[in-house]
Amino acid sequence: MSDDVLSRLSELLEARKSADPASSYVAKLYAKGMDSILKKVGEEATETVIAAKGGNKEELIYETADLWFHTLVMLSHAGLQAQDVLNELARREGLSGIVEKASRKE
Amino acid sequence: MSDDVLSRLSELLEARKSADPASSYVAKLYAKGMDSILKKVGEEATETVIAAKGGNKEELIYETADLWFHTLVMLSHAGLQAQDVLNELARREGLSGIVEKASRKE
Amino acid sequence: MSDDVLSRLSELLEARKSADPASSYVAKLYAKGMDSILKKVGEEATETVIAAKGGNKEELIYETADLWFHTLVMLSHAGLQAQDVLNELARREGLSGIVEKASRKE
Amino acid sequence: MSDDVLSRLSELLEARKSADPASSYVAKLYAKGMDSILKKVGEEATETVIAAKGGNKEELIYETADLWFHTLVMLSHAGLQAQDVLNELARREGLSGIVEKASRKE
Repeated sequence: MSDDVLSRLSELLEARKSADPASSYVAKLYAKGMDSILKKVGEEATETVIAAKGGNKEELIYETADLWFHTLVMLSHAGLQAQDVLNELARREGLSGIVEKASRKE
Repeated sequence: MSDDVLSRLSELLEARKSADPASSYVAKLYAKGMDSILKKVGEEATETVIAAKGGNKEELIYETADLWFHTLVMLSHAGLQAQDVLNELARREGLSGIVEKASRKE
Repeated sequence: MSDDVLSRLSELLEARKSADPASSYVAKLYAKGMDSILKKVGEEATETVIAAKGGNKEELIYETADLWFHTLVMLSHAGLQAQDVLNELARREGLSGIVEKASRKE
Repeated sequence: MSDDVLSRLSELLEARKSADPASSYVAKLYAKGMDSILKKVGEEATETVIAAKGGNKEELIYETADLWFHTLVMLSHAGLQAQDVLNELARREGLSGIVEKASRKE
């Protein structure tokens, strides 16, 4: 299912790590290093906030996809995968995580 | 599988939209409105960047989970679901999306 | 004195508002509109955080200057000036603002 | 004049560095360390973007003041002062900096 999109993307990103920097956007981003990847994460987070305030749903989907995508590149660069984050979210859910979160923060 | 975590979370979040604000962290966040949700998205994005720079993998997983979680709350508040973003990512992938991205941006 | 830098910059930015978009970086940014300016604010805030974590003082000065500069462009685009923000900071200081802040937040 | 606000604030912040963490908001923030200060910078940047999109001028002034204030705390924690950033901005201005910026970026 398309539920597997994040895992498939993670694998795809893993494969790009050894690619020629000139071969793709992602290969170039890896070559630039973590700071450049993190700048994109911050940039896409801001664009997501702007899109949400703007009220256009298509734009919000688009920018959130950009944000998730660049967090996947970040995870991959750090030797992690989407599954690590999904496991953490599942763990919280299993612990009735949203309640847990309520008690943890503020 | 845990690939479905995002979809399960989306459903769970949908169900919380009608809950008493006092009943959970998320119900309270919905009641505060979109600006408060977006502040959390911005805050968690910054914490993700700080964690990545710090180099602790556990922390990076944790903060990325927080970031994804709050983007799910944002999507839900906007009448959208994780699946909408996953479809967009799948669409790009299908169009050999990473290459597409390369040509779209700089 | 160089204390006046922000006010001088504000005036300079005001003058650019009617300039040909092709004439300078700022005139181009004005022409793109508020969303583009805000993307720069978010981007430079992230770069400031990354620079601070990196520990290089020169870089931190540079990125903070970029951040302040783009907030000035934002203020100008919104019909405001550096002085409006400086007045607000002075007002807080006069009210022993840092203490005030302590009681206001968390 | 109130142009000196940033310099006065910088001095005030410097003085708080040795204060009891319980004595003020800023003293507590210093004690928490750079990561906590940077979280505030990211948070206030997001709130500034949200305020700008909201279109309320009072709110935009208020949030920009919060953002500048926390960048001053950040600078102070890094052993820097407002003047260092103002000097950098003045230097750019002297070099007709906005033009310089135009050629430097994109």
